[in-house]
Amino acid sequence: MDEVVLAVLDRVTEAAARHDAAQEDRLDRWRVLEPDAGRFVWFLAQAVGARNIVEIGTSRGVSTLWLADAARATGGRVLSFDTDPAAQEDAARTVAEAGLSDHVEMRLEDGGAGLAALDDGTVDLLFLDAERTEYPSWWPHPVRVLRAGGVLVADNALSHPKEIAPLHDLLVRDLTAVTTIPVGKGELVARKP
Amino acid sequence: MDEVVLAVLDRVTEAAARHDAAQEDRLDRWRVLEPDAGRFVWFLAQAVGARNIVEIGTSRGVSTLWLADAARATGGRVLSFDTDPAAQEDAARTVAEAGLSDHVEMRLEDGGAGLAALDDGTVDLLFLDAERTEYPSWWPHPVRVLRAGGVLVADNALSHPKEIAPLHDLLVRDLTAVTTIPVGKGELVARKP
Repeated sequence: MDEVVLAVLDRVTEAAARHDAAQEDRLDRWRVLEPDAGRFVWFLAQAVGARNIVEIGTSRGVSTLWLADAARATGGRVLSFDTDPAAQEDAARTVAEAGLSDHVEMRLEDGGAGLAALDDGTVDLLFLDAERTEYPSWWPHPVRVLRAGGVLVADNALSHPKEIAPLHDLLVRDLTAVTTIPVGKGELVARKP
Repeated sequence: MDEVVLAVLDRVTEAAARHDAAQEDRLDRWRVLEPDAGRFVWFLAQAVGARNIVEIGTSRGVSTLWLADAARATGGRVLSFDTDPAAQEDAARTVAEAGLSDHVEMRLEDGGAGLAALDDGTVDLLFLDAERTEYPSWWPHPVRVLRAGGVLVADNALSHPKEIAPLHDLLVRDLTAVTTIPVGKGELVARKP
C-alpha cells in the first residue's frame, strides 16, 4: 500500500475515532472499518484477484480506501452504495485525496435496491457494512450477484452477533466456507461455490 | 467444517496446550496452530480455490487438519513436510481419525530440500510453520514454486517479529499484497503476481 493512501487512512481513521467518541446516539457514529479488518479485506480482495468489488455502506470511505487500493492492484474498481449524501461526498473527497478516484464509483442509492439491479454472477467481492438488520431482506441478491468463487464479507460479526445471526444462517444455507475472522469488529466471510 | 474434524481439532488443540504448558524448553513444545489462525488459513485456502497446498512443519497436525479440510472442499490435497518422525506419525493418525487421509501426503523430509525439489509454479498455497530463521536460506524456492496468484502464509509474525523480519523483507521484494493478519500468533501473508 502506498504512502499517500496510508497517510489518508490514518488521518480519516483517527478523525472518525474522535468524532464517534463525542456521539451519544449510535446512529450518529461513523463507525468506520478498523485497521485490522481493513488490512484483512485489502489482502483478501487481492488474494482472490477481485476486480469487481461492491461495497454496501460507503460511510466515510475508510473501507472504500482499503478496497480501492486493492482494486488498483488487481486492475479493478469498487462500486460503493450509501444513502447518506454528506457522508458519501466526504468519502469521495477522501478517495480523491488518496489518488484512488479512478478505482471507485459512488452511488447514492439504497444498497438493497442497488444489489437487485446488478447482473447475475458479476461480483468478485461483496462487502456488507450497512444496517445489519436489513441484510436478509436483500436476499437472494447478495448471493445471486456473486460469481462462482466470489466472496462475501460482512463487518460486525463479533460486535453485533445477534444482528448478524440471520445473515449467518442464510450464508450457511447458500454458500460455503462460512466462518468469522476475528479481526476488527469480526468479519463474517463466505464463498460462492 | 464437519463435526468429526471439529471434534478431532478440539481434542488435539487442547492436548497440545496441556503438553506445552509442561515444557520448559521452547523446542520441546508442539506449538500447534491457534484456532483463529486455523480458521483464517482454512477460509483463505478455499477463497483462492487452493488445490495444491504445501505445508512446511507438520508438527502435531493441527494446521494440517485445517488445510486438509479446506483441500477436501476444493478437491485438492496437502503435502506436509516435517523432520520429526514421531510428530509426523502422530499427525498422520490424527488426520486419519478426522477422515482426511485422502487429502494429505506426509513427507519426512527437510522443508527447504522439499521445496527445492518441487516444480515451478505448481503450488496454490504455501504455509510456513517451521524453524523461522531457516526460511531465507530456502530462497528462491518459496516464491518459485508458487503459481501466479498463489499465496504464502507464515505463522508467528506477531509472536516472533524479529525472526520473521528477514522473511518479510524477501516477500516485500518478490511478492505483492504483503501484510500481517493479526489472528493467532500473527499470519504474514503475500501473493505472487
